Amino acid sequence: MSRDAEAPTTRFGRVAVVGIGLIGGSFALALKAAKACDEVVGVGRSRANLDAALALGAIDHATDDVAQAVRGAELVLVATPVAQFEPVFAALEPVLAPGALVTDAGSTKRDVVAAARARLGAKIPQFVPAHPIAGAEHSGAAAAKAGLFRGKRVVLAPLPENPPRSVERVAAAWQICGARVSEMTPEEHDAVFAAVSHLPHLLAFALVRDIAERPDSAQLFGYAAGGFRDFTRIASSHPEMWRDICIANRDALLKEMERYGAQLEAVRALLEAGDAAGLERVFTEARSARNRWLDGEFDN
Amino acid sequence: MSRDAEAPTTRFGRVAVVGIGLIGGSFALALKAAKACDEVVGVGRSRANLDAALALGAIDHATDDVAQAVRGAELVLVATPVAQFEPVFAALEPVLAPGALVTDAGSTKRDVVAAARARLGAKIPQFVPAHPIAGAEHSGAAAAKAGLFRGKRVVLAPLPENPPRSVERVAAAWQICGARVSEMTPEEHDAVFAAVSHLPHLLAFALVRDIAERPDSAQLFGYAAGGFRDFTRIASSHPEMWRDICIANRDALLKEMERYGAQLEAVRALLEAGDAAGLERVFTEARSARNRWLDGEFDN
Repeated sequence: MSRDAEAPTTRFGRVAVVGIGLIGGSFALALKAAKACDEVVGVGRSRANLDAALALGAIDHATDDVAQAVRGAELVLVATPVAQFEPVFAALEPVLAPGALVTDAGSTKRDVVAAARARLGAKIPQFVPAHPIAGAEHSGAAAAKAGLFRGKRVVLAPLPENPPRSVERVAAAWQICGARVSEMTPEEHDAVFAAVSHLPHLLAFALVRDIAERPDSAQLFGYAAGGFRDFTRIASSHPEMWRDICIANRDALLKEMERYGAQLEAVRALLEAGDAAGLERVFTEARSARNRWLDGEFDN
Repeated sequence: MSRDAEAPTTRFGRVAVVGIGLIGGSFALALKAAKACDEVVGVGRSRANLDAALALGAIDHATDDVAQAVRGAELVLVATPVAQFEPVFAALEPVLAPGALVTDAGSTKRDVVAAARARLGAKIPQFVPAHPIAGAEHSGAAAAKAGLFRGKRVVLAPLPENPPRSVERVAAAWQICGARVSEMTPEEHDAVFAAVSHLPHLLAFALVRDIAERPDSAQLFGYAAGGFRDFTRIASSHPEMWRDICIANRDALLKEMERYGAQLEAVRALLEAGDAAGLERVFTEARSARNRWLDGEFDN
């Protein structure tokens, strides 16, 4: 279901952003640029990062205390590493106001929903899970920009407990940031991203490690060129973040690895048989599908 | 062995470029820009492509007749698809002058050397195999530019029959184009590029095909983002060219697929065991190696 219609005239008084890095900082900047909130309180553990967010004007107040930031907030974005979500939910639950809404920026959704159910208790209807599909080479509040989400997708994974009006308000917040908002269940979300994001990351990490482990790795890297650089760009991603994503989405990712292994075995068999026509067919199908994707055939 | 020293003052009278696409056209433009030759004759099968090369000033004369172009040439670059090398070598052999040199731009080297041995006969000492590591998004003479090889690697794979002076002259031609020239045996070359180029291409083609074949491929592509785009960029490469590369380098590529399969199985086992620390170690090793590569640690 697509929610790309014109954003409603939605406003939030105080907004709390827990985890004020690239994503949290950009969310804050975008809401402030649209005058969609009165003030933003940023929660972080690093003073330097909070200072950068203050200097950028992304946040008006900085604290390391979740409860202090969330008290009085109408909207809370949880944008810390997913491993910290349980304590963050536990800390915000006692002070979350009745009409307030919580959303998040986690890359996996089933584990986030489980953490929210465990820690938000009766306030679970106030949590509308989200995954903004926007990364960047750089991280930290200093890299934040109001336009980070412009034209990017945000997947909402609403819960059965969410009142439709709450889902609409959270969708509106992301739309105000310029995002194209759509909805999936947490299960659909994790299956889709296992295929198009988590598996490619694993493949890239594995390739670089395969080269790095060899006695002649210096020579091999010495001849790696632009194709290798782009193929392995995602192998420069954060190890801790990707560890958590892989563990959280383990079952879906294992299924994807099995599928991919079968595909690779089919290609290997063509190669072993010297089946030039068969290989050309595989490459042609792949190129044609990728080019149709680049041409926007699968946008919606 | 590195040949990055200052280029000798090398000149060629007539240069023939057989296959006047991106690579051949850029080679011609670079030699002409350096005033390293008197004239360039381009050989092609497509009139439009030859006209583009003439319009760019890459070539002075155009023909579809290899023998006519090579007669009187001091340097010949064979830059057609590798599948056409045998007939090209056969056509140029009878007219190749005694002091003239031949080089090529093929992505694999053992098969090219075999084709040259089969067709050049006693003139094999005049052929110095080469592989310029320079591609681009676009192909065809119209995309050619004098700076295409600037700072890029060119691997020479000299033959035991090549007089050192001939290797030096061919190296100089590529250095005049701005390339960093080094040497490997044809066997080393094919092993190195199986690992850092041919395998990643196969992996990317296989991933895109794996997605494209599914009933829900439109949804999956709809959520694929920047990481997927970069990872699969090389899956938009020419199917025929990659078919030929894979077949020509089949044994080395099969070995690489086996190695990579074992690496992937090790990662899969960590994931299945829920070994978060083990996964983080793999990702950290990969990121660290890639970042050292980006920092130029393996340049030489």
